[in-house]
Amino acid sequence: MRIVLDAMGSDDCPEPEVQAAVQAAAQFGDEILLVGPEDQLLTRLQSFDGSARRVQIIPAPEAITMQDKGLALALKAKRPQARNSMAVGIDLVKRGEAQAFVTAGNTGGAMATAFYRLGTMPGVERPALTALFPVKDGYCVVLDIGANPDCKPEYLYQFAVMGSVYAEKVLSVRNPRVGLLSNGEEPGKGNQLIKDTFPLLQSSQLNFIGNVEGKELFGGEADIVVTDGFTGNILLKSSEAVAKLITDTLREEMMSTFRTKIGGAIARPAFTAIRRKLDPREVGAAPLLGVAGLVFIGHGRSDAYALVSAIQVARQAVERDLMGAIADAIASQLKSAAPAGPR
Amino acid sequence: MRIVLDAMGSDDCPEPEVQAAVQAAAQFGDEILLVGPEDQLLTRLQSFDGSARRVQIIPAPEAITMQDKGLALALKAKRPQARNSMAVGIDLVKRGEAQAFVTAGNTGGAMATAFYRLGTMPGVERPALTALFPVKDGYCVVLDIGANPDCKPEYLYQFAVMGSVYAEKVLSVRNPRVGLLSNGEEPGKGNQLIKDTFPLLQSSQLNFIGNVEGKELFGGEADIVVTDGFTGNILLKSSEAVAKLITDTLREEMMSTFRTKIGGAIARPAFTAIRRKLDPREVGAAPLLGVAGLVFIGHGRSDAYALVSAIQVARQAVERDLMGAIADAIASQLKSAAPAGPR
Repeated sequence: MRIVLDAMGSDDCPEPEVQAAVQAAAQFGDEILLVGPEDQLLTRLQSFDGSARRVQIIPAPEAITMQDKGLALALKAKRPQARNSMAVGIDLVKRGEAQAFVTAGNTGGAMATAFYRLGTMPGVERPALTALFPVKDGYCVVLDIGANPDCKPEYLYQFAVMGSVYAEKVLSVRNPRVGLLSNGEEPGKGNQLIKDTFPLLQSSQLNFIGNVEGKELFGGEADIVVTDGFTGNILLKSSEAVAKLITDTLREEMMSTFRTKIGGAIARPAFTAIRRKLDPREVGAAPLLGVAGLVFIGHGRSDAYALVSAIQVARQAVERDLMGAIADAIASQLKSAAPAGPR
Repeated sequence: MRIVLDAMGSDDCPEPEVQAAVQAAAQFGDEILLVGPEDQLLTRLQSFDGSARRVQIIPAPEAITMQDKGLALALKAKRPQARNSMAVGIDLVKRGEAQAFVTAGNTGGAMATAFYRLGTMPGVERPALTALFPVKDGYCVVLDIGANPDCKPEYLYQFAVMGSVYAEKVLSVRNPRVGLLSNGEEPGKGNQLIKDTFPLLQSSQLNFIGNVEGKELFGGEADIVVTDGFTGNILLKSSEAVAKLITDTLREEMMSTFRTKIGGAIARPAFTAIRRKLDPREVGAAPLLGVAGLVFIGHGRSDAYALVSAIQVARQAVERDLMGAIADAIASQLKSAAPAGPR
C-alpha cells in the first residue's frame, strides 16, 4: 500500500511529517510518499536509521499555507503544472500511484485541490467534509462541516449515505444511527432545508433516528449527524471555542489562589483525561467524502503522533475499500430513486 | 411600575415565582402582578409578611406547559378567551395595565403568545428571540436564537438594529460591536444569506465589525452576534451541550480515583466559579425583540434568584424606554432606506 503524506501541512512542518512518515512506514509496513521540498526532507530523513528506507521523497518545491485564500488559493489548487505539495500529492492518487492522500494543512486548500484535480465520484452531487466530534463515550461523524455553505435536500441525503458507509467501513460501527441536525427534535422542526430533507431520510434504507439537537449529538445518541456546510462549520468552531473558554477559565481559576493551585496539582490526572478527550490529535484525520480519491485532512496542530493516526485511518479506508463501498451505495441510491413507472 | 410575572413558568413553579414576586416587590418597590391559579398563589402568598402587599394576584386557571407544542400550543396562545397564565399576563401588557411580562416557561409558548396577542412593532419585519451568552470577560447578545428558522437579509439587518439598541439601553454597552455569524471571518465567507446581509450591515450606521466565528464570539470580541433563528438555536443548544459534556466528564474523572477526589475537593472554589460563569440564572432573562410589548423569557431552571434578576432586567428596559428606542431606530432605518430619488 502506498500512502501520500503532505510534508508541508502541519503548523510545525515538516518535522512532524518526516517523523510520522518514518514511524508509519515501520509500524504498518506501507510505503509512505512524503511530498515536499527535496533537500529539506532528505537532510531530515538521513538522521533516521534503516526504517526510513520505506519513505520515498516526492519533490514539491512549493506549498499551500494557512495564509492562502480566495482566488490565489484556487489558482494554486487548479493549475495543471502546480508544484505545491498538495497538488503534487493528490496527482499521485489521481494517477493511481498511491491509494490515499493525508495532510494536516489548510483545509480549504486541500478541499479545493481535491475538487479540481480529482473531481467528484460518479453520481455524487457534492463532496462533503467530515469531522469526528468527541461525544459522550465515543465519537460522532459530522458532515458537512464546511465544503458546501448552501445545500439542497439531495446533498444532505447523500451526505447521510456517505457518512453511514464511512462509519460502518472505517470506524466499524454496525448499523450506524443517522441524525439530522435541527432546532428541535420533533419531525417538522427545522428550516426549509431540514423540513425537505427529513422525508428523504425517513423513507431511505438508512438507520435514521430523526432530528437531533446538541443534546443528542454530544450525548452520543447518533453515530452520524448530517447538516449543511455552513451550520456544520459554525457547530464545529463554536464547540471548539466553548471548550476553550471553559478550560481556559478553569485554568485561570485554578491558578488564582494558593488553595486551588494545590488542589489542581493533585487532581491533575483528571485534567489530563479531559484534555485527551478534547484533543484533535487522537482523531488523526477526517475524510473528504465524495471526491474521486481518498483524501484525509488532519488538524493543523497535528504532531507526529496525530499524523501516524491519520495515516492509520487512511490505510484502513484503503484496506476496507471505502471508495468502492461509497460508489456502490450511491449507485443503489440512484437506482432506487429512479422513476418507478406508473403504479 | 407594574411588571407581570408568569407564576406557572419555571420547572418548580409556582414556588420560585411567589418568592421572587415578594422579593422583587420589596427590593424594587414595583407592583408585581403574579398570574396563575388564584387559590394556590393566595395560600403561598399568605405565608409572607407585609412585603407581599405589593404583589397582586391575577387569576389564570390554566397554563402552557413544556409539553405543549404544535397546533395545540398555537391555539392556547391565540384564542381570545384563553385563560392560561401567559395569555392572561401578556394581555395585561397589551392593555397597558402593566409595562412588561416575565416568564420562565415554554419559550415557544411565550413567543407564540406574544406574536398573536401583541403583534409586531410598526416597521419590524420579524421579532427575534435573544440570548445572553457567557463569553470571555462578559456576555454577548445573540439573536435570533429560534423565532425565525428561515430568514432574509432584511430580517438579520433589523436584528442587528434591535440588538444594538438593547445592548446600549439595557446592558449599558457604549457603541456596541455587531458581528455577523459566519463560517469564516473574511468578507465573502458565508452562505447566500450571510453574503447578502454583509453589505447591508457594512453600509449601516451600526458598529459592524464584520463576520465572526465561534472564536470571536466566545472570545468576547462582539457585543451582539446576529444570525438566523435556525443557526442561532443550534449554536445555543450545542454550546450548552458541549459545556455539559465537559463539566460532566470532568466531574466523572474527578470522582474516579482517591487522589483526584481529594484534589477536586481542595480546588472546589475554582469549580464553583466556572459553574457560576455558565449558569443561566445569572443572566435572568432575555427579551423577545420586535413585538409590540416588553416580553422577557428566562430559563426553565430558574429559581427565585434568577426570577428576581429577570424582573430587574425587565424593569430596566421599562425605565430606559427600550420600546421607544427600538421604535426610533427602526423608523430612522426605514427613513434612510427610503428611495432617495434621482441623484
